Amino acid sequence: MCFKHYHAEEVLMGRKMEDWLRFSVCYWHSFCGTGADPFGFPTLCRSWNEGAPMEAAKRRLRAAFEFFTKLGVKYYTFHDSCINEDSWFLEMWLLKAPPWRSPTGTWMKLQIWLFQLQKQTGVKVLWVTCNLFAHRRYMNGAATNPDCHVLAYAGAQVKKGLDVAKKLGAENFVFWGGREGFHSVHNTDVAAELKHMASFFKMAVKYKEKIGLKCQFLIEPKPKEPCKHQYDYDAMSVIGFLKHYGLEGDFKLNIEPNHTTLAGHSYEHDIVMASAFGMLGSVDANTGSPDLGWDTDQFPMDIRNTTLVMKTVVEQGGLQPGGLNFDAKVRRESTDVEDLFVAHVAAMDTFARGLRNAVRIIEDGIMAGMVKDRYSSFSRDIGQKVDEGSATLEEMEAFIKEKGEPKMMSGKQETYESIFNRYI
Amino acid sequence: MCFKHYHAEEVLMGRKMEDWLRFSVCYWHSFCGTGADPFGFPTLCRSWNEGAPMEAAKRRLRAAFEFFTKLGVKYYTFHDSCINEDSWFLEMWLLKAPPWRSPTGTWMKLQIWLFQLQKQTGVKVLWVTCNLFAHRRYMNGAATNPDCHVLAYAGAQVKKGLDVAKKLGAENFVFWGGREGFHSVHNTDVAAELKHMASFFKMAVKYKEKIGLKCQFLIEPKPKEPCKHQYDYDAMSVIGFLKHYGLEGDFKLNIEPNHTTLAGHSYEHDIVMASAFGMLGSVDANTGSPDLGWDTDQFPMDIRNTTLVMKTVVEQGGLQPGGLNFDAKVRRESTDVEDLFVAHVAAMDTFARGLRNAVRIIEDGIMAGMVKDRYSSFSRDIGQKVDEGSATLEEMEAFIKEKGEPKMMSGKQETYESIFNRYI
Amino acid sequence: MCFKHYHAEEVLMGRKMEDWLRFSVCYWHSFCGTGADPFGFPTLCRSWNEGAPMEAAKRRLRAAFEFFTKLGVKYYTFHDSCINEDSWFLEMWLLKAPPWRSPTGTWMKLQIWLFQLQKQTGVKVLWVTCNLFAHRRYMNGAATNPDCHVLAYAGAQVKKGLDVAKKLGAENFVFWGGREGFHSVHNTDVAAELKHMASFFKMAVKYKEKIGLKCQFLIEPKPKEPCKHQYDYDAMSVIGFLKHYGLEGDFKLNIEPNHTTLAGHSYEHDIVMASAFGMLGSVDANTGSPDLGWDTDQFPMDIRNTTLVMKTVVEQGGLQPGGLNFDAKVRRESTDVEDLFVAHVAAMDTFARGLRNAVRIIEDGIMAGMVKDRYSSFSRDIGQKVDEGSATLEEMEAFIKEKGEPKMMSGKQETYESIFNRYI
Amino acid sequence: MCFKHYHAEEVLMGRKMEDWLRFSVCYWHSFCGTGADPFGFPTLCRSWNEGAPMEAAKRRLRAAFEFFTKLGVKYYTFHDSCINEDSWFLEMWLLKAPPWRSPTGTWMKLQIWLFQLQKQTGVKVLWVTCNLFAHRRYMNGAATNPDCHVLAYAGAQVKKGLDVAKKLGAENFVFWGGREGFHSVHNTDVAAELKHMASFFKMAVKYKEKIGLKCQFLIEPKPKEPCKHQYDYDAMSVIGFLKHYGLEGDFKLNIEPNHTTLAGHSYEHDIVMASAFGMLGSVDANTGSPDLGWDTDQFPMDIRNTTLVMKTVVEQGGLQPGGLNFDAKVRRESTDVEDLFVAHVAAMDTFARGLRNAVRIIEDGIMAGMVKDRYSSFSRDIGQKVDEGSATLEEMEAFIKEKGEPKMMSGKQETYESIFNRYI
Repeated sequence: MCFKHYHAEEVLMGRKMEDWLRFSVCYWHSFCGTGADPFGFPTLCRSWNEGAPMEAAKRRLRAAFEFFTKLGVKYYTFHDSCINEDSWFLEMWLLKAPPWRSPTGTWMKLQIWLFQLQKQTGVKVLWVTCNLFAHRRYMNGAATNPDCHVLAYAGAQVKKGLDVAKKLGAENFVFWGGREGFHSVHNTDVAAELKHMASFFKMAVKYKEKIGLKCQFLIEPKPKEPCKHQYDYDAMSVIGFLKHYGLEGDFKLNIEPNHTTLAGHSYEHDIVMASAFGMLGSVDANTGSPDLGWDTDQFPMDIRNTTLVMKTVVEQGGLQPGGLNFDAKVRRESTDVEDLFVAHVAAMDTFARGLRNAVRIIEDGIMAGMVKDRYSSFSRDIGQKVDEGSATLEEMEAFIKEKGEPKMMSGKQETYESIFNRYI
Repeated sequence: MCFKHYHAEEVLMGRKMEDWLRFSVCYWHSFCGTGADPFGFPTLCRSWNEGAPMEAAKRRLRAAFEFFTKLGVKYYTFHDSCINEDSWFLEMWLLKAPPWRSPTGTWMKLQIWLFQLQKQTGVKVLWVTCNLFAHRRYMNGAATNPDCHVLAYAGAQVKKGLDVAKKLGAENFVFWGGREGFHSVHNTDVAAELKHMASFFKMAVKYKEKIGLKCQFLIEPKPKEPCKHQYDYDAMSVIGFLKHYGLEGDFKLNIEPNHTTLAGHSYEHDIVMASAFGMLGSVDANTGSPDLGWDTDQFPMDIRNTTLVMKTVVEQGGLQPGGLNFDAKVRRESTDVEDLFVAHVAAMDTFARGLRNAVRIIEDGIMAGMVKDRYSSFSRDIGQKVDEGSATLEEMEAFIKEKGEPKMMSGKQETYESIFNRYI
Repeated sequence: MCFKHYHAEEVLMGRKMEDWLRFSVCYWHSFCGTGADPFGFPTLCRSWNEGAPMEAAKRRLRAAFEFFTKLGVKYYTFHDSCINEDSWFLEMWLLKAPPWRSPTGTWMKLQIWLFQLQKQTGVKVLWVTCNLFAHRRYMNGAATNPDCHVLAYAGAQVKKGLDVAKKLGAENFVFWGGREGFHSVHNTDVAAELKHMASFFKMAVKYKEKIGLKCQFLIEPKPKEPCKHQYDYDAMSVIGFLKHYGLEGDFKLNIEPNHTTLAGHSYEHDIVMASAFGMLGSVDANTGSPDLGWDTDQFPMDIRNTTLVMKTVVEQGGLQPGGLNFDAKVRRESTDVEDLFVAHVAAMDTFARGLRNAVRIIEDGIMAGMVKDRYSSFSRDIGQKVDEGSATLEEMEAFIKEKGEPKMMSGKQETYESIFNRYI
Repeated sequence: MCFKHYHAEEVLMGRKMEDWLRFSVCYWHSFCGTGADPFGFPTLCRSWNEGAPMEAAKRRLRAAFEFFTKLGVKYYTFHDSCINEDSWFLEMWLLKAPPWRSPTGTWMKLQIWLFQLQKQTGVKVLWVTCNLFAHRRYMNGAATNPDCHVLAYAGAQVKKGLDVAKKLGAENFVFWGGREGFHSVHNTDVAAELKHMASFFKMAVKYKEKIGLKCQFLIEPKPKEPCKHQYDYDAMSVIGFLKHYGLEGDFKLNIEPNHTTLAGHSYEHDIVMASAFGMLGSVDANTGSPDLGWDTDQFPMDIRNTTLVMKTVVEQGGLQPGGLNFDAKVRRESTDVEDLFVAHVAAMDTFARGLRNAVRIIEDGIMAGMVKDRYSSFSRDIGQKVDEGSATLEEMEAFIKEKGEPKMMSGKQETYESIFNRYI
């Protein structure tokens, strides 16, 4: 391993790099991924996938923890199906067995292995999630399925997932609603589906409290794909939903920039918005290509982007208990195992550069000072009343009658951009 | 005039066509529009714009009311600047005068003329809005401007606007936040801006109550353009904002489908979502081209789209006090006055066909019945508990232990689409 | 079967409906499709897929020809891999065998079965294509692969494909370059790749001539997906490529509207452009959702779209030897076999309505007459010289010196749209 | 002025920075721009615009040349209307006068002033273009107008423009077809319009030769805006058009990345494609935001982008006689004159960094070496035959029969990206 910019122990603004960045490797992409895409078969041949299912599962887990350790990453993420099963393709058959009765005690064994590997290596679970979208039973949704039988199945699976999260000490638990949405308004009762989704979340909150699970619940927005429309479209949609159903105290957001750009926003947009609402819980550190209309889950390599993300993260005091999870996959053409290392190292370096840039921006204080000046009228007189919410339109009119037309104030966007470029 | 499908007096489902459709003509597009675009100068030469400013203003208003009457439309909409001034280009100079002291008593005269014309013709104001985006003072926002002086100016203007709304009996009042957003995150304090916008709306609500103005307040979402990002991105963003600041009881939404498609949704999406949340107040009846990334404000000519909109409208019992406002402009190449008539007549016919189709769909009940069946599991047993919000994950698990894997239920999208096509 | 609009034998403008429409069923989507998507496992359980590979293959083919016959469709399309193999998932292993030596003589048997089924039913091959994208060997391209060994493999496969096309009497042969493009400019030599692709096509043309294969070669443009960029971006890109390499006489285009919309155009755009250049050979009759950024291959259900396509088709005198191939798949949630019938019937009816509308538009001649008038200045005097290419700038200047400013001519877009709506 | 990275005289790879970069200031954006946008009035108050039209014109020109000189930029660009007239808004009236008889001899005077200013300062014209889109006469197109009278007007204007180009020693002449396209297929005869556009270009070529004008003709692609579709959609569309009409020897392309991204490509795409076809003539050095669907013409500030552009430029041996023209405008909120300086300096520094990075990449040769290796199979044996176009499908088959399945070769995208990041 040769990091050029990431030094786990280096202290910036009173905190170690590794504590600002809290990197996490995504088990399913990096160890279960096959390279298959909608137009092509698997391309990635990994030695850890050979052999009988349970043997392969064990070998794969060992390889993963060895990878985490070599890389110096302290967290990993997984979803139940990728741990549960020996391979992506076999799973569809095995999952026929309900979650509490997995074939030949698979789950039980896997949990024990994971528990041991975590203990041996010190690597922890950043978050767990339940895969409520891949099995065909979920094709019409899980929590928003028109058939309550399916919702019940999802509930049973989440119950199991929460138990596992407790046992393995997961610091967060993510809900990604890939099938919670619709393909056609013709056959959909939107109001009913949203209500059921809220009920579903409430059940999860109740059960979490019951079993004393301490982790943070996170919802991950995505606007579309696989559905034509997903209810968790973007940060603001989820915030609106949570507030409507009184759930905003129990959830934060897990923002994935590749999803943000699919919703028509810029890379950093949902990071900034979620943080402004006090709802930024964790980040899926990946990227897409802005010219593509689907989720490519590429490793983040753009320093401008990582600088903006880390600036927001540092300004809100960090992501803990969340982190930066590499929800990214090597391109299916990157078939060497070495590519997996290169990709993670390069992405970690890219985020380390972003962090370093962000810290310099914040410590210099030039940009922050310019912004503060820009809004300074709100800290006195009539501005203060507006800020506090106690002003009236009559006062506004009176103020203008006295003061007349405001002076023009340049927005100075190019100056800000130019100063920002100094740090990159 | 020769409508082929619109018959104002025809009764459908117990209500006249004109009462379901509540058409409104947009004064600024159809009577103040010049055909200028970002790459071209005016193309539309209208006889009513000739002569001295105030004469032209009077002539233009008369032409407009004559047009409304000939067309048989009972409502119109305007924003303060288009009524206030004699022409789009002159306005930038005149508006230097603050709203309560417009040059040579323009406003006063215009109000009197409008009041008289409304009385003579019976045509009413569907909604008024304040133009808080065109003047250069608003370039960095109105309610979200970093300078409180500008916010105050906007407040004074809205106070005036609300007085006018009262005097002219406007049934609604629209806020479109074209400059409420940002071009660059570098120079923007998002949290502060949102807070100020909420304060601004609260002032408006308070003043409205004070003067006893009965109209419905509406927010019109638009995702971007002119800003890189506007806070009122789409229906769910606005709903989230309103709920966060406790404003949801005082506002509904004015949905413009051309804005909806710019936000990455399908034409009918925000109509459906707003209605599902009980927040659909009015519709800007226009369209864009889905392959274009800016607001083209074309006249709606697609029967599929109008059928879907009217289905939602009829299902929620109508739009009153809102309506269908033609926020649309003839193409700048459509230079004949006749084109203005043709465009409105064709759009009204398109909506009349949409209404007729929607009514047939609803009266037949085939699609509604299929949807009801699809969700029927939620009206009994465990489904009912989920629907009511009283179920638990433990019950879900128990249910699945007993019942096992759910049966596959086809979503039958093509069947729905095929049935829908029968009505078109 | 109950068509509401499609009547194969009905004669319109001197030709039977079935001869204008030349429908074709897509074997791979409708009989090999599993419902898997990038986020989900198969959902479609078809009885014809049960049993041992070769038995299933036979049963599947029989089911398909029974379907064609019941539907009254005279053509089908396939790609080598879907015929060659027993299932999508097994294929990746079997294709390890090179094309001329498929396992246990699979190819040979399949060809014989196909030949017999075609003879028994009268159903013919609209086109064949070689799948040069699904196998992992093609991950970096086939004709544009940086390794000539892979290009050679593709060449061997196409040679086989052309032999099969000859044997089965295919009327066209399609090249879809799903992997001919790039994911990153960093590792790509664009100029070299384009040159190799041209060489590849030239080899195919030469071999086709050698074996006396009469079918039309077609290239199918698609802008992106699976690649970040595909060289065959849209109609004009392909035309530019063909002309650059002197291949324009040997190829026409197979336009798929879902690809057209992904390239940022409107649904009908590439149909119209290809036809204007005399290059429209065939149509993949499907649709996407304009708000989605990937290929959804939905059944076409929009009458406006089918009217525009058929208007162009009728105006150019038909598509023969091309046709309308349903490159569409039932939604993965449409799990009943019945959905397959409903989808095809509804799409055929949608195109039949489109044809009928187009014929009425053309026979009425109103729109065509308006367009002719609009361009009439080019049929006389200076206009004629411009049209013939013999005019000069000096003549232009002289003309303007004499005639002065041109008169404004309204483009009348809304009038055209309104008239168009009469036929829908 | 304080450049941090741009040093005009510094020599890189045997050429001065200023000769690689050949910067040019855009006269109309930076000196005629008002800050108006489709939703707002002018915001930019420039002292040089005050006074009577011709005085203001003179003052504006002097200010511009002073700006060029201070900035150390050697080139500028203009279009006839921005030089011709005293202001954007007045122009619509003045242009009623035909090009050869402008009011009060404006043109003549302006030419003389320009000629003198060029002589005094040594600043030269990178390119001239004719504005064939802003005047209402061109609303339905110039070279593609359905009325030949308008085409003739455009011809007379281009004749004048070519004379001016000659007199002022312009090194290039640009055609941007903003209105050459359509808004509706209903009223458009695409084939006729393309033919007329070709005729138009042929007249221009002929006249250019006649007057001995030496400059390079350039076409600037843009996919849409203001039209729904423009024929010069992107680089490949223009190349296809030029080749179809035998014009490819007389034109190169002026690529504007903001247009490229509107066509659905990545920033550098058309630069790379045009260069691969030997058609890259000049670059409009600006940027848009990838999340916006219209042309924002921002100053380029992204170092990754400028590195990629300059890498292509250096690899093809430079752009001369083309250059890097800042077809960019300060944001309308950037109202200080200082912002104009900051924007240009920052953009020049951004391109200087890009150049420096590109030179290091090229001189190191690591990436180029990796690419060369990747394609090495085409320089020997069967690969060489493919490269030369002399191979056959039979040879491909024979080769595979002997060699079997190709070996997998990783595309190593992340490695390339990681190496690329080292230079940024």
